[in-house]
Amino acid sequence: MIVLFTDFGLAGPYTGQVIAVLQQTAPDVPAISLFADAPAGTPKPAAYLLAAYAAWFPPETVFLSVVDPGVGSARRALIAEADGRRYVGPDNGLFELVLRRAGRAQCWEITWQPPVLSASFHGRDLFAPVAARLARGEDCAGLGRPIAATRHPEWPDDLAEIVYIDHYGNALTGLRGATVPAAARLLAGGEVIAPAANFSAVGDEGKAFWYVNSNDLAEIAVNRGRADRGLGLAIGTPVVVAS
Amino acid sequence: MIVLFTDFGLAGPYTGQVIAVLQQTAPDVPAISLFADAPAGTPKPAAYLLAAYAAWFPPETVFLSVVDPGVGSARRALIAEADGRRYVGPDNGLFELVLRRAGRAQCWEITWQPPVLSASFHGRDLFAPVAARLARGEDCAGLGRPIAATRHPEWPDDLAEIVYIDHYGNALTGLRGATVPAAARLLAGGEVIAPAANFSAVGDEGKAFWYVNSNDLAEIAVNRGRADRGLGLAIGTPVVVAS
Amino acid sequence: MIVLFTDFGLAGPYTGQVIAVLQQTAPDVPAISLFADAPAGTPKPAAYLLAAYAAWFPPETVFLSVVDPGVGSARRALIAEADGRRYVGPDNGLFELVLRRAGRAQCWEITWQPPVLSASFHGRDLFAPVAARLARGEDCAGLGRPIAATRHPEWPDDLAEIVYIDHYGNALTGLRGATVPAAARLLAGGEVIAPAANFSAVGDEGKAFWYVNSNDLAEIAVNRGRADRGLGLAIGTPVVVAS
Repeated sequence: MIVLFTDFGLAGPYTGQVIAVLQQTAPDVPAISLFADAPAGTPKPAAYLLAAYAAWFPPETVFLSVVDPGVGSARRALIAEADGRRYVGPDNGLFELVLRRAGRAQCWEITWQPPVLSASFHGRDLFAPVAARLARGEDCAGLGRPIAATRHPEWPDDLAEIVYIDHYGNALTGLRGATVPAAARLLAGGEVIAPAANFSAVGDEGKAFWYVNSNDLAEIAVNRGRADRGLGLAIGTPVVVAS
Repeated sequence: MIVLFTDFGLAGPYTGQVIAVLQQTAPDVPAISLFADAPAGTPKPAAYLLAAYAAWFPPETVFLSVVDPGVGSARRALIAEADGRRYVGPDNGLFELVLRRAGRAQCWEITWQPPVLSASFHGRDLFAPVAARLARGEDCAGLGRPIAATRHPEWPDDLAEIVYIDHYGNALTGLRGATVPAAARLLAGGEVIAPAANFSAVGDEGKAFWYVNSNDLAEIAVNRGRADRGLGLAIGTPVVVAS
Repeated sequence: MIVLFTDFGLAGPYTGQVIAVLQQTAPDVPAISLFADAPAGTPKPAAYLLAAYAAWFPPETVFLSVVDPGVGSARRALIAEADGRRYVGPDNGLFELVLRRAGRAQCWEITWQPPVLSASFHGRDLFAPVAARLARGEDCAGLGRPIAATRHPEWPDDLAEIVYIDHYGNALTGLRGATVPAAARLLAGGEVIAPAANFSAVGDEGKAFWYVNSNDLAEIAVNRGRADRGLGLAIGTPVVVAS
C-alpha cells in the first residue's frame, strides 16, 4: 500500500497527478490519501502528525510524504526506513520523529533521476516514482545511497503545540496520550480544559474537553462545536499541561 | 461496491484510514466516497439524504454510513438490510427513512468484535471491517444478531428542511419531488421561490428557483450564484410548500 | 486511464456518483480526479487550464471534462479527439484550446443515449458512460456522429487572466511559460510582480513573485503566504505582461 501524507489538497491538480504517476508505475498497488492537508509548508508539526498516524499502518507500507517548503533548493531527497515502513520525501525534518521512535532505522539519499524534473513539483516528478518503485518491490539501495538524514535533536519527543485542525474543528496536539497524565488539565487558547473519556461523556453542549484520540494523540474538542473557532486554536498554538 | 456516506471529510485522516481498512479486508471490492460531508453529527437530516441517494445504487451495494454523535456511548451498532442494499452504521435514526421506504427490511445488532476498538473512531475499527466482510460475501447473520432497530415514527415521510448544501451552494431539501406540486412555491430564507425546469430555463442571473434534482429531491438554487449565501440557508432551515 | 476535470467538488455526491458509473462500466480502468474545482460554470478559463494540464498525460487518456453551465439547454454533447487524447463533455468552448493546439483533431456529437437522462446531471448520466465506453475500447464513431465543434476564434491563444487559484492560494494564469519573457514583470491586483526561479529563490517572506509552474503556466505566488488574499486575485482577474 502507498499512503499519501501531503499538504497538496485533494481538489486541485497535485494529488491527481501524483496518483496518476503511482498508478502508471505500480498499477497493482493501492494508493490511499491519508492527509492531503498536512500542516502546509511546516515540516515540524507535520513530523509529529506523521509519526502518530504512520504507526497505525502495517510495516510494509510506503509513505509518500511531502511537506516541502524547500522544493527547488539544495535540500536532499530522502528514503527513510523505520521499523520496516518506508518514507519517501524531502530531508527537512519531516521524518525526525519517525526515525527517533524507531527500533531500527536507515536512510538513503535518492540518486534515481527522473527523465524530467520540474523545479516546483518534486512530489510528482521524483518522490512519487520512487515510492511506486519501492512499493512494487525495488530495493532502497538501488534507488539511493546510504546517508545520515539531517536530524533535529533540539525538537522535543512530544510537541506541546497544536499540530492539526481536523474537519470537525478538533485540535490535535503533538503530545502522545501516555505523556499526559489522565487527570491533567490542558491550557490552550486561554482556557483550562479538563479531560473526558469521549464525546458522549461530556454533558454540556459547547464545552471544551481533551481526550486521547484513536491515533494516540491528545486532542482538544468541543461537544457539538468547533474547538478551533471557540478557543482560537491554530497550528502552532502552544499547549501547556497542568497536572 | 462499498459506498461511503459519512461526515468524516476527505482531506483529513478519517476517510483515508477507513479506505485502508476496506482495501485490506476486501481488496477486490471498489470503495467509493459518495458523501464525506453528510450533515455533521445530525442523523435526522442525514437520514433523508441517505435514503434519496442510496436509491440510485444497485441492490448489492454496501453502504458504510457513519454520522455518529453518540460514538463511545451505549448506542448500538447496526447492519440494516433494505430492499437488498445493506447499511452499516450506528443505531441512531440514520437508517430510519431507508427502512421506512423499503418493501422488505431486516436489522442486526453487530456482535462481531474487532481486535482493538477505539472509543472515538468506530467507523475505522468496527463499521469498516463489518462493511468489508459483507461486501466480500459474509452473511449478516454471521456478524450480528437480529434486532429491531430504534425507530423514529415521529419523523415525517418527507422533511421540509434543508438537509444539505452542495459544492455550488445549492440547498437540498428533504422533500421528494413527487410530494411537491410542480407549480408550488417554496418559502425559505424569507423568500418565495418559484419552480424552474433547470438552470438554463432561468433567465435572470442571481434569481432563486427550485427544481427536482437528479436524485429526486426538491433543491433550491440560484442561477449563477450561491443559494446558501444569497438566501441565508443552512442545514436545518425550514422550508414551506405553498401551492 | 480516465481523468476527471470538473467543477463538481469532491466531498459532495457528484464525483462519487460519476466514479460509481465509471467503475461499473469500465471496472478495469483507473479513474483519477485531476480537478474537481475547475472554474465553476465558466468554460473559458477552464479551457486554458484543461489544455495546460491535459498535455502532461499520455495520449491514450480519456478526459471526462464537465464545466457545464448550459446543462439542460440545447448545447450539444461532445467527444473531441486531439493528438490521440479523447475528451468527453459539453460543446461550450471547454475544448477550444485543446483543439486549437492539436496537430490533428476530430469531433463527434454524442448520439449514444442513456436509459435515463436527468435534466441537471449529464456528467453522471451521459458523459461518464460515454467516457467509460471509450476507455474500455469502443470507437468514437460508434458513440457519436462527426461534427464541427462550436469554436471560439475570438479567444486568444494565451489568456492574460487568472484561471485558477490553487490549494496554497497561488494564482495560475492562462499564459504559457514560453509566451512570457523570462525577465518580464506581471501586473496583477495592482502590484508589479517580478519573476523568480522557484519558491526557495525568493528571500523575503510575504513577497509576491511569478514563475513558470510544472505544467508550463505562468503562476503568481507569495513566499510563505497566499497570493490570492495578499493581492486580491480571483478567477478572471486580468494580468498584464510588462517587459
